[in-house]
Amino acid sequence: MTATAEDPRWLDDGEMRAWRAYVIASELLRKQLNRELQDRHGLALADYEVLVRLSEQDGGQMRMAQLAGEVASSKSRLSHQIGRMETAGLVRRVECGDDARGVFAEITEAGRARLRETAPTHVAGVRAHLVDLLTAGDQTALAEIFERVLDHLGHPEH
Amino acid sequence: MTATAEDPRWLDDGEMRAWRAYVIASELLRKQLNRELQDRHGLALADYEVLVRLSEQDGGQMRMAQLAGEVASSKSRLSHQIGRMETAGLVRRVECGDDARGVFAEITEAGRARLRETAPTHVAGVRAHLVDLLTAGDQTALAEIFERVLDHLGHPEH
Repeated sequence: MTATAEDPRWLDDGEMRAWRAYVIASELLRKQLNRELQDRHGLALADYEVLVRLSEQDGGQMRMAQLAGEVASSKSRLSHQIGRMETAGLVRRVECGDDARGVFAEITEAGRARLRETAPTHVAGVRAHLVDLLTAGDQTALAEIFERVLDHLGHPEH
Repeated sequence: MTATAEDPRWLDDGEMRAWRAYVIASELLRKQLNRELQDRHGLALADYEVLVRLSEQDGGQMRMAQLAGEVASSKSRLSHQIGRMETAGLVRRVECGDDARGVFAEITEAGRARLRETAPTHVAGVRAHLVDLLTAGDQTALAEIFERVLDHLGHPEH
């Protein structure tokens, strides 16, 4: 049976319990990780995530449209964010004249240095607030659940 | 052993697999749920979540500071958001003269109507992109993992 907007199948108690715990904890976790990076380094989590994605690419570059998909941002919001990060010297925009699909973002040396300096804070937070709370079974369950979501939403990663 | 910023314990392959799947899928899931509400109803997911939280309170009211915690927003960002929602007639701000802790947000009748009209789209998305992808075991695992995160982060919910 397909759920439609006209005939919703509301969540039952067990489904609601799982969904609410997940959605609220996920938001609190992001907020906490963001606060730790802001307080210790003056860096937003969203900016940290852009630096990570770019640093993993050959040449430290990624097409803006692809980067928007990777960090789940709208193109206009990402464009604003990359503008701020460019002013801070962490990335630069590169236009490729021979490519109609447009503009790339590229991590700078200062951006890579910023990432190296802040990564220990981020990984300590990820451990303290999630990873170190998981049993081995939880860890596998978490990977399998969200790899299924990635497959379903059509993301190429993993 | 405690992880410190000076001596990071980097994630091993299994931990990284779980973390990356979770963090990327979670962002894509939010983006997808937001897009469905925007496309079908012109409502942002963040606004939907505020309406849900307020609708569950006695009198449909919540202190702004508490609401900011519930939706994991900063007070300044929430204040801006509530301003937009007030202009749209979905909430109103109520000042309580006898309470130094300040301002409440309250859902309006139009806000409750908007929630009833949009909830079927949201629940259909939550099912299609997460809940209906879970086995019974996954569902329990998800609830237990994120209730542990909520306990750890000091949230009273559940």
